[in-house]
Amino acid sequence: MAGKSVENSTDQMSDEQLLALESKYCSYGDTVHYAKHLNIFRRAEGMYLYDTQGVEYVDLQMWYSAANFGFANKRLNDALKKQIDTLPQLTCQYLHQEKILLAAKIAQDIEKKFGVKGRVHFNVGGAQAVEDAIKVVRNHTGKIPMFAFMGGYHGRTLAATAITSSYRYREHFGHFSDRAHFVPYPYRFRCTAAKNKESCCDLSCLKPFQKLFESEYYSVLSPKNNNCEYGAFFVEPLQGTGGYIVPPQNYFKELKKTLDKHHVLFVADEVQMGMYRTGKLWSIEHFDVVPDIIIFGKSLTNGLNPLSGIWAKEELISPEVFPPGMTHSTFSSNPLGTAAGLAVMNLIEDSNLDVEVPRRGAYFLKKLKVLQKKYPQIGEVDGLGLALRIEICQKDGFTPDRELTDTIMHIGLKGGLGSGGKKRGLVLDIGGYYKNTFTLAPSLFITEEEIDLSVMLFEECLQKALAVTKSK
Amino acid sequence: MAGKSVENSTDQMSDEQLLALESKYCSYGDTVHYAKHLNIFRRAEGMYLYDTQGVEYVDLQMWYSAANFGFANKRLNDALKKQIDTLPQLTCQYLHQEKILLAAKIAQDIEKKFGVKGRVHFNVGGAQAVEDAIKVVRNHTGKIPMFAFMGGYHGRTLAATAITSSYRYREHFGHFSDRAHFVPYPYRFRCTAAKNKESCCDLSCLKPFQKLFESEYYSVLSPKNNNCEYGAFFVEPLQGTGGYIVPPQNYFKELKKTLDKHHVLFVADEVQMGMYRTGKLWSIEHFDVVPDIIIFGKSLTNGLNPLSGIWAKEELISPEVFPPGMTHSTFSSNPLGTAAGLAVMNLIEDSNLDVEVPRRGAYFLKKLKVLQKKYPQIGEVDGLGLALRIEICQKDGFTPDRELTDTIMHIGLKGGLGSGGKKRGLVLDIGGYYKNTFTLAPSLFITEEEIDLSVMLFEECLQKALAVTKSK
Amino acid sequence: MAGKSVENSTDQMSDEQLLALESKYCSYGDTVHYAKHLNIFRRAEGMYLYDTQGVEYVDLQMWYSAANFGFANKRLNDALKKQIDTLPQLTCQYLHQEKILLAAKIAQDIEKKFGVKGRVHFNVGGAQAVEDAIKVVRNHTGKIPMFAFMGGYHGRTLAATAITSSYRYREHFGHFSDRAHFVPYPYRFRCTAAKNKESCCDLSCLKPFQKLFESEYYSVLSPKNNNCEYGAFFVEPLQGTGGYIVPPQNYFKELKKTLDKHHVLFVADEVQMGMYRTGKLWSIEHFDVVPDIIIFGKSLTNGLNPLSGIWAKEELISPEVFPPGMTHSTFSSNPLGTAAGLAVMNLIEDSNLDVEVPRRGAYFLKKLKVLQKKYPQIGEVDGLGLALRIEICQKDGFTPDRELTDTIMHIGLKGGLGSGGKKRGLVLDIGGYYKNTFTLAPSLFITEEEIDLSVMLFEECLQKALAVTKSK
Amino acid sequence: MAGKSVENSTDQMSDEQLLALESKYCSYGDTVHYAKHLNIFRRAEGMYLYDTQGVEYVDLQMWYSAANFGFANKRLNDALKKQIDTLPQLTCQYLHQEKILLAAKIAQDIEKKFGVKGRVHFNVGGAQAVEDAIKVVRNHTGKIPMFAFMGGYHGRTLAATAITSSYRYREHFGHFSDRAHFVPYPYRFRCTAAKNKESCCDLSCLKPFQKLFESEYYSVLSPKNNNCEYGAFFVEPLQGTGGYIVPPQNYFKELKKTLDKHHVLFVADEVQMGMYRTGKLWSIEHFDVVPDIIIFGKSLTNGLNPLSGIWAKEELISPEVFPPGMTHSTFSSNPLGTAAGLAVMNLIEDSNLDVEVPRRGAYFLKKLKVLQKKYPQIGEVDGLGLALRIEICQKDGFTPDRELTDTIMHIGLKGGLGSGGKKRGLVLDIGGYYKNTFTLAPSLFITEEEIDLSVMLFEECLQKALAVTKSK
Repeated sequence: MAGKSVENSTDQMSDEQLLALESKYCSYGDTVHYAKHLNIFRRAEGMYLYDTQGVEYVDLQMWYSAANFGFANKRLNDALKKQIDTLPQLTCQYLHQEKILLAAKIAQDIEKKFGVKGRVHFNVGGAQAVEDAIKVVRNHTGKIPMFAFMGGYHGRTLAATAITSSYRYREHFGHFSDRAHFVPYPYRFRCTAAKNKESCCDLSCLKPFQKLFESEYYSVLSPKNNNCEYGAFFVEPLQGTGGYIVPPQNYFKELKKTLDKHHVLFVADEVQMGMYRTGKLWSIEHFDVVPDIIIFGKSLTNGLNPLSGIWAKEELISPEVFPPGMTHSTFSSNPLGTAAGLAVMNLIEDSNLDVEVPRRGAYFLKKLKVLQKKYPQIGEVDGLGLALRIEICQKDGFTPDRELTDTIMHIGLKGGLGSGGKKRGLVLDIGGYYKNTFTLAPSLFITEEEIDLSVMLFEECLQKALAVTKSK
Repeated sequence: MAGKSVENSTDQMSDEQLLALESKYCSYGDTVHYAKHLNIFRRAEGMYLYDTQGVEYVDLQMWYSAANFGFANKRLNDALKKQIDTLPQLTCQYLHQEKILLAAKIAQDIEKKFGVKGRVHFNVGGAQAVEDAIKVVRNHTGKIPMFAFMGGYHGRTLAATAITSSYRYREHFGHFSDRAHFVPYPYRFRCTAAKNKESCCDLSCLKPFQKLFESEYYSVLSPKNNNCEYGAFFVEPLQGTGGYIVPPQNYFKELKKTLDKHHVLFVADEVQMGMYRTGKLWSIEHFDVVPDIIIFGKSLTNGLNPLSGIWAKEELISPEVFPPGMTHSTFSSNPLGTAAGLAVMNLIEDSNLDVEVPRRGAYFLKKLKVLQKKYPQIGEVDGLGLALRIEICQKDGFTPDRELTDTIMHIGLKGGLGSGGKKRGLVLDIGGYYKNTFTLAPSLFITEEEIDLSVMLFEECLQKALAVTKSK
Repeated sequence: MAGKSVENSTDQMSDEQLLALESKYCSYGDTVHYAKHLNIFRRAEGMYLYDTQGVEYVDLQMWYSAANFGFANKRLNDALKKQIDTLPQLTCQYLHQEKILLAAKIAQDIEKKFGVKGRVHFNVGGAQAVEDAIKVVRNHTGKIPMFAFMGGYHGRTLAATAITSSYRYREHFGHFSDRAHFVPYPYRFRCTAAKNKESCCDLSCLKPFQKLFESEYYSVLSPKNNNCEYGAFFVEPLQGTGGYIVPPQNYFKELKKTLDKHHVLFVADEVQMGMYRTGKLWSIEHFDVVPDIIIFGKSLTNGLNPLSGIWAKEELISPEVFPPGMTHSTFSSNPLGTAAGLAVMNLIEDSNLDVEVPRRGAYFLKKLKVLQKKYPQIGEVDGLGLALRIEICQKDGFTPDRELTDTIMHIGLKGGLGSGGKKRGLVLDIGGYYKNTFTLAPSLFITEEEIDLSVMLFEECLQKALAVTKSK
Repeated sequence: MAGKSVENSTDQMSDEQLLALESKYCSYGDTVHYAKHLNIFRRAEGMYLYDTQGVEYVDLQMWYSAANFGFANKRLNDALKKQIDTLPQLTCQYLHQEKILLAAKIAQDIEKKFGVKGRVHFNVGGAQAVEDAIKVVRNHTGKIPMFAFMGGYHGRTLAATAITSSYRYREHFGHFSDRAHFVPYPYRFRCTAAKNKESCCDLSCLKPFQKLFESEYYSVLSPKNNNCEYGAFFVEPLQGTGGYIVPPQNYFKELKKTLDKHHVLFVADEVQMGMYRTGKLWSIEHFDVVPDIIIFGKSLTNGLNPLSGIWAKEELISPEVFPPGMTHSTFSSNPLGTAAGLAVMNLIEDSNLDVEVPRRGAYFLKKLKVLQKKYPQIGEVDGLGLALRIEICQKDGFTPDRELTDTIMHIGLKGGLGSGGKKRGLVLDIGGYYKNTFTLAPSLFITEEEIDLSVMLFEECLQKALAVTKSK
């Protein structure tokens, strides 16, 4: 095999050697090459990543919220190793204890909080769980078209792309016959609907959607029989890629009223915002709404396994209506994934995240607001729990400044921060409608000292970026 | 949390307690409840599974070929643990060594064997890799419709279901606008096309497909400009779920000629038959054909992680035509998965599977042929490497006997086999067009003694099943 | 043949006999049975219909604007008869003079008015011309999704239904993979967007559409390459079924700017509003916009033949890009249809409709405004040329009153109007988002006396309806 | 208007002037420009067309069978004129006698012949009737995919194109999400399936279709619940464009058995082969099958109006299941069309076509067989009633010779035939899978002398063509 020499030199391959191989053999079609400078990391622990030179990077995005409980969390790693030593593999056609317990924990918790019975169905990767949710909706409603939010993101399989707003993700792959109808998400900082947005939100932006159901001519309803063309509304309660936007408190409650009236299901995609990112297991818990389906993934295993899944109301997923063989994948409830998931749920039970995450989030947000006062380029900071956002603008504090945002991120990734002895880096993620928003998803166990360090590093990046760009 | 009591009793939950929870909280929509009696397993090692009572089951399907290298393979498990201890998590936007080395190994090996350059793109779950292959095809050809085989299986996301033949997988989910055109697979045991099937295969079954390209009236080609309506042909070289059928030697070579003539891509889905199941890394290597895209998954990590991926020819996937952001998933090249995959590739290099798998397969097949002579109900045994098939029929040796097949499987799963002291079980998988085929995928490291044991247990199941059913 | 007796009694069949046959042998799936009482008509002349009893009905809808030039117009009828006597039939593969002259007249007129060269393609039925326009758009842009207006109507073939807003037309026919994205039409009487709608229209309702192109997250554009997901915007300049709504003067001009910027074609569907209904050959002529495609039908032949067609800009339809065989139908340019169409165009040339239609329309509207002052239930009257609307409301002059509207129409159709000797009827058509709008399409040759008569009959119907309903 | 001068010169425009206008203002996208030399015709009568020079052309295709009863048939023309003088226009929302009587005649006749009750729904243009049939099928079955024949033609709206086999008609218009599954039509002359095609037809070609229903793996059926993925099979009993192929006698009977077993509807498209073309009102009458839906058009009005329609079984189209508003078009049952249709049905009743058409067809076929014996290039002649086919081949009598076929047609269209004084032309139509088949559709009133003349002219064309081409 040509790779023989590669194999032998595994442990000592330099970054240069690796990058040379990468440029020849790796597809550029994923997100690695969005960056001009490529980072290779060798070790992870807590909220830190380490590169080949041993430089320590503070990671404020934690794998897009897939590692909420800290990199290399010992308790979780140990649980995974224990499973490796007992039942690392099992055909998903047969049962193992961890699958059952994990499903039970999730469903019992939802029943307790929301008062509805339901069941859990596992799969791997958030997008495949989204596909399963689509299947449940199609099976129950007989409808293919879905509502979804502008700015929403639900994954990159073809069916998930069809309900993800960006046309950029679709344009190379031909016609999408199941393209969603996309509805504006309530984005208060850039609201154009409300008359008086500062003082309060009157949910003006919801009215055009509610109006759609008033006349058959508005295209979505046959009023004669109250039959809606759309089967479900796929919702990220806080948008992830869209920029960690916190919606008005009553928005979903009012939206759900309209949907219920016309038998449109409400699907909460909690893949990014679930698992205590916002201070609750599911972010939808904040909004006084009972979802029909919940989709989860990412931090369910703290990133140790791509396990994902859905919970659905009993009437949508009971054995009578969703019988054996409706969906499935080889790794759907793989033992390593369910063991990691069960360990995460146990960790949650033994932690005090309901209290700690809001407290840490409030501290972080307070620090960011102090920063905002110093720099007009910080248009907005906001957050819920430890889902935080910083919107970078021109000096007017409003016009999005993508160049400045990019520069800040690149400075962080270069790893040359820190005035004193130790060189550090900062890993940030950019999201938002205008690619000018830092979406912060720090470790849920971040300490106040680590928050202070994070904000300090961010300010250093910002200052350096302001020095090299011409902020208008 | 209501589950508190559950958590505390984790280690000692009985099968009864677990099954009670399962019936309340687990979706039945996967494949668990195809069975009437549910098996719970607690431990796995080599080719054996162990249930709560410690009964040992010989597993002849190895997670549908996802654990080719044996359950709990120490070398692979250790590699995974090593990764857990160093870099268990990393945003896939950044690079790590194992991803690059694994991609390089796969691409270099293909370049060596097939003489074509290409790149690797990772994802998780076979179906998502299939979706990525579809994206590459659509992007390159601008076509949405695909050819695929009757009897083929490519996964259960919506787009993968559209190219998977069984309508049963589609019927509950509304219209599939991208449903493939399904072509008969060359199934010699039940061939109706050839005039003289015993002596030789004249590829008669391929002629109707070749004829499609003769006139515009045959619906797939515009002969004026040699423009075909279809972008690619998705091929499992040996069908998996379809019944581990070995195709005629020249079939794919001739098929590829027709496809090449009309610029239709050839996509080899190696998710089940790759990773030495048939005695070569990719099963398509047997058939003297250079595929345009190869899809892999399952045993890539020996089942330790749902890592999957595609390899595509440079012209289909070069950075120019498949630039950053074309597809992606959070876990696409997750460190634990790539580390496991790299360990598998290293293990392969250090093994002698090119020789060993054919040898073991031949021994197994020989034993099965002996059995076939004794029982008229064994209509056919066949195989390539350690992908083996046993077709269970009525006494005429031809009419499929699904009831007998089911009975054999259930007897094996009851775990009461073995005349002597030790009670054993046998795990078999049923596939095939008439659900009468045992698709055997034993561990690639199975010994001759273990083969003898397997065949003995199978014969015991068969005898017991014949006693309780009325084989016609 | 069972029908023999029917044949013999053709001339003297009574209404009762006919209705008995109708209830047995005619599909109810068209629009006849929307009515509770069925009218049978025997003769038509000018703006009058006559039933079996010889009662004269003033027809104010003129076959939904398909007989703009009066029923049984002698000049047009004679032209048709002349063609019957010479070349009544001809395979459309061969040429005849009338086809060529009609196409030339239309294209030359457009070139003169709009300054752009183009070609005409004939078909039969408005919906088939819409299909041809869709084909031209798809061929030129490579896009399947289209924009269209809420309240818009483009026909009832499946592809035309996909761009027609009412879901009621789709709900029984499964998934529409090419469903348009529907945009609110500027409906000033019920505007909710403008701050100050009485004094002026600030085109507030256009802003949400314009905003869609601002960020990729708004779902329709990939800003990187200014690639829009949608190929064209299908526009009825005044909505037909939607209620003969007259748009703000600058609306289309501003809309077109946005479309041009992103290479989205502008298709004017003039099937109902063309042929001088609004006082110009094409209604789009009022709005200072050059369409890329014009669709026409209905009054092209004054209802004597279903001939329809499209005109498209040369770059969209030149022989190079739209070569032989792209579309076609047996009757596409049938000799009787083209002869009737040519006669209509000649009649137009010899008339003074540019002046007369606005004059007659103004007189009609003035009369209606007098009526409006008397009856608070007339919420709005408006019009352009002889496309007029009367919106029937509750006493508040705003809340739609569908029951009252229906009652007025039914009273007119009963044929018992007229205080004096001669009994008369009135044929009205109901449209509008709330089914409370009379859409008036009188003969373009209506006289002032006939307008007076029409308004008088309408008032009589309204008074009688108010007497029997409880107008709130 | 720029066209003023054109108008004035209407009557005396020369061919050259017309062709100049045509090349500027007419779309080439229809079928006119398939020809290199363009024919302009001025008059039609009986089976003759006359060009500008007065040359008489024998027309053996009669507008693709749209003028079965002869051009300018006096009785039919008079009926049309009578309607012009009474009720030429009427909104299709209201009733008129001719619509009802025509529907009744058709439905009563079908009830008498087939023993099933049903209803008629009118539209304009064959394709729109096909769309209505699709709507009826979708509404009844809930299925979108359809079966249709390779070589079949059902029209050129997008939905009709999806069930028409030629990809050439689809390739420029993007993805067809409702593309039919196309099945080989029984084409005996080029049969490759039957073992012994000369002596008899064993329906071998039907077996692959029947086999599709044997296992879920064959992609169309879920055998558990006998649920087929396809809603209907759209059938031209004799293919039109496909080459006027006469199917084996029992083919449709056997096909229908399979369809009935799995609840797939049988739709007979009689647009081209109906109206006595084959010697019966509907060509399906020959084959001992009761269709679920019949589609008709073309000669229903003898080409005087594009009226078309469907008949469907009561259970598919009763008011309960197909209520008002399901489908519709402005001209759906236009008075001129229904009057012409009624006149055609009356003419049929007064004729003896059941006897005459077969007699004339037999005479014509006999003459063609004589010709076939003389010329090896006539590979096959066949026919049913007056639907006749001549397949032009190379000297081997089998290999299609498209060039020779084209040459024959062009010689006929040049109009220089006839050895004696009077110059004549011959209008032929080419169809067939290899574009080498003359599809003859002469007037149903053709006399034996006219047949003799036709055959003589055809032979002259053939001889001249053989002289200028190199027949191999």
